[in-house]
Amino acid sequence: MSSTVSPLAPLNHPVLPPIEGVRIATAEAGIKYKGRTDLLVMTFDVGTAVAGVLTRSKCPSAPVDFCRQNLPAGKARVLVVNSGNANAFTGKKGRQTTAMTAEAAAAAALCSPDEVYLASTGVIGEPLDATRFSHLLSSLTAEGTADRWADAGKAIMTTDTYPKYATETVKLGGVDVTINGIAKGAGMIAPDMATMLSFVATDAPIEARVLQRLLKRGADSTFNAVTVDSDTSTSDTLLIFATGAAAGRGAPRITSEKDPALAPFRRALNRLLKDLALQVVRDGEGARKEIEISISGATSSRSAKRIALSIANSPLVKTAVAGEDANWGRVVMAVGKAGEPADRDRLAIWFGDIRVAHEGERDPNYAEAAVSNYMKNDRIRIGVDIGLGRGKATVWTCDLTKEYVAINGDYRS
Amino acid sequence: MSSTVSPLAPLNHPVLPPIEGVRIATAEAGIKYKGRTDLLVMTFDVGTAVAGVLTRSKCPSAPVDFCRQNLPAGKARVLVVNSGNANAFTGKKGRQTTAMTAEAAAAAALCSPDEVYLASTGVIGEPLDATRFSHLLSSLTAEGTADRWADAGKAIMTTDTYPKYATETVKLGGVDVTINGIAKGAGMIAPDMATMLSFVATDAPIEARVLQRLLKRGADSTFNAVTVDSDTSTSDTLLIFATGAAAGRGAPRITSEKDPALAPFRRALNRLLKDLALQVVRDGEGARKEIEISISGATSSRSAKRIALSIANSPLVKTAVAGEDANWGRVVMAVGKAGEPADRDRLAIWFGDIRVAHEGERDPNYAEAAVSNYMKNDRIRIGVDIGLGRGKATVWTCDLTKEYVAINGDYRS
Repeated sequence: MSSTVSPLAPLNHPVLPPIEGVRIATAEAGIKYKGRTDLLVMTFDVGTAVAGVLTRSKCPSAPVDFCRQNLPAGKARVLVVNSGNANAFTGKKGRQTTAMTAEAAAAAALCSPDEVYLASTGVIGEPLDATRFSHLLSSLTAEGTADRWADAGKAIMTTDTYPKYATETVKLGGVDVTINGIAKGAGMIAPDMATMLSFVATDAPIEARVLQRLLKRGADSTFNAVTVDSDTSTSDTLLIFATGAAAGRGAPRITSEKDPALAPFRRALNRLLKDLALQVVRDGEGARKEIEISISGATSSRSAKRIALSIANSPLVKTAVAGEDANWGRVVMAVGKAGEPADRDRLAIWFGDIRVAHEGERDPNYAEAAVSNYMKNDRIRIGVDIGLGRGKATVWTCDLTKEYVAINGDYRS
Repeated sequence: MSSTVSPLAPLNHPVLPPIEGVRIATAEAGIKYKGRTDLLVMTFDVGTAVAGVLTRSKCPSAPVDFCRQNLPAGKARVLVVNSGNANAFTGKKGRQTTAMTAEAAAAAALCSPDEVYLASTGVIGEPLDATRFSHLLSSLTAEGTADRWADAGKAIMTTDTYPKYATETVKLGGVDVTINGIAKGAGMIAPDMATMLSFVATDAPIEARVLQRLLKRGADSTFNAVTVDSDTSTSDTLLIFATGAAAGRGAPRITSEKDPALAPFRRALNRLLKDLALQVVRDGEGARKEIEISISGATSSRSAKRIALSIANSPLVKTAVAGEDANWGRVVMAVGKAGEPADRDRLAIWFGDIRVAHEGERDPNYAEAAVSNYMKNDRIRIGVDIGLGRGKATVWTCDLTKEYVAINGDYRS
């Protein structure tokens, strides 16, 4: 936890209501941090379905490997998350730690190890000693209560400057169901490694296979559309747990992604994922401005997203925004380097609602003063029309400031 | 030109000897800068062959489009380079400018416009008025002399903190031939756009087609293996001109890439390209350290280069080096995000000659003090063995400092 809260932090945190079938407990295991919680245990009722989206890194952490192995079965009874140590690049010892933690958690929750889910965030390359916290799992599973979402959000923080919460209540077949989510973001200090973790739970009765498709699609336009510095963690983990408890109140069981009853739930889940993803961006290291980049007119939506990410990951675009300069030349550069179909003479570029470039040239009506004024906002929208097709995408990032370099480079001084 | 010279600048600049068949003149055209030269004209004897490697940007500048159009014919009589304006994203006006400049240069050098080569570097998106300098081309082609390479290097600078020169003399079939090269680097300030330009000339009699292959291969492991911030310019241009004058002194005409007489020339050209490319990196914005990244054991050399560039472009690796931290966790992360075949449990990582990670874990013999000491050097070597195959690659970059952010973000304050 940083002592300085990001200037982009939300003014108020929502209060997350209980979700039937989910119990939460946290503890100070002293894994690395002192005087703060660093262990989260969430237990789920029998019958809880699970789905997940994990890092695409070719060098994933041991907990990511562990989750990936369990996900096809789609059943969850307990989630154990620690902060302070990522259990990444820890080789055989790392696998021993996940196996030992899963055994202890399974014994505590009276389930099988393949119904256990694990996530770790913190220092990389240091062996994580499971005995530091495995003895706590039994009491934590026993004492969990439904009203501790605020504690859950705090226990998973590392260098985040604020905890990240979101909640939605929505009708499923005429019955209210709730979705809660917590996240921790891309903060990376000391030899620590950035990790994006997010855990979502709902009482909606949705089959694991359907849940997986919903989550994958939702993540594509939210968590997989945000970038702080283009660096992919070894540990990124997004999991959703559906206890199904709302079935007891008459909610229909969802077994097909095409079920029309699912539409409001899908929209609510996507809103929640976007809300959490943007909270992560707004807590990006050294961030002073949130940047939304929208591409239209690309040859496909995949092409649009690649162009959008090329702009979002350009240090020159990000430093220009930090300097409050509507430097559309750098946007052109980033479009050009994306390697996707683009024609300079068809490009149009906007900052906010102000068109600065049109058909391969500076917009003749472009007024420097109006744009300069716009760039003072703490939320900057960059729009690019490629002029070739109908492909669209939106991604989010933050500016690149000296504070980013200080956080990631000065920590030894 | 910056008032502060990069701490990584070479201590001495080499003196470039004349190349028979090349004449050089420069002028203060006042395109943007005042009180310094901003126009370079190089004229070449009849029979000069040319080859080139141009930016892969999908939104190239007008001069890049112009050179690309002329290169297949492989003949050059005159090169016109201006600094201060990149003539990029200037649409139809940009094409009019290159056409007008080429006409004026062709009239001055008594050649056809398709024997003219153009390059521009500086501000992007501003129309470049060819009449600012087209009237100078006639006198500049007339008054050029062979001994002005130092002036040539200075006239093409924008935000470079030092001019970049290299020269090689080597035997071709028992006869001495010379290769000279100049470059300007990746400095980007104000609404200016980074551009890497490099011009090489030799008196060796080498056919254009052979020259093109030599240059392409040479660039792949030199100019195409350096990165400052992953941002590809709209204007990157590397051209080589071979006057063939050494044939008059008995050098053999080279018409095949497999000619054994070519071997020393090829090595010398590659040395020269590497020398210039590293001078560009060492003048990277805000650079305090040069970083060499060598990959071995990848499944192919293409895969090795992708992994190397993933590490070289990682802001987290670059800030760690700036902070003098041998943060191998970030190197693992960058290997993982490259998307290339890699197995965490086979990776080995070195900083200098010190192995810090081995077979998926921290090296048990890794001594923090020795590594910390190594990181104080101004040239840092990072080695990674992927452990899967025989693919190798080396790339170069520089660290990411607060000065980079200041140069690219603070210019308006």
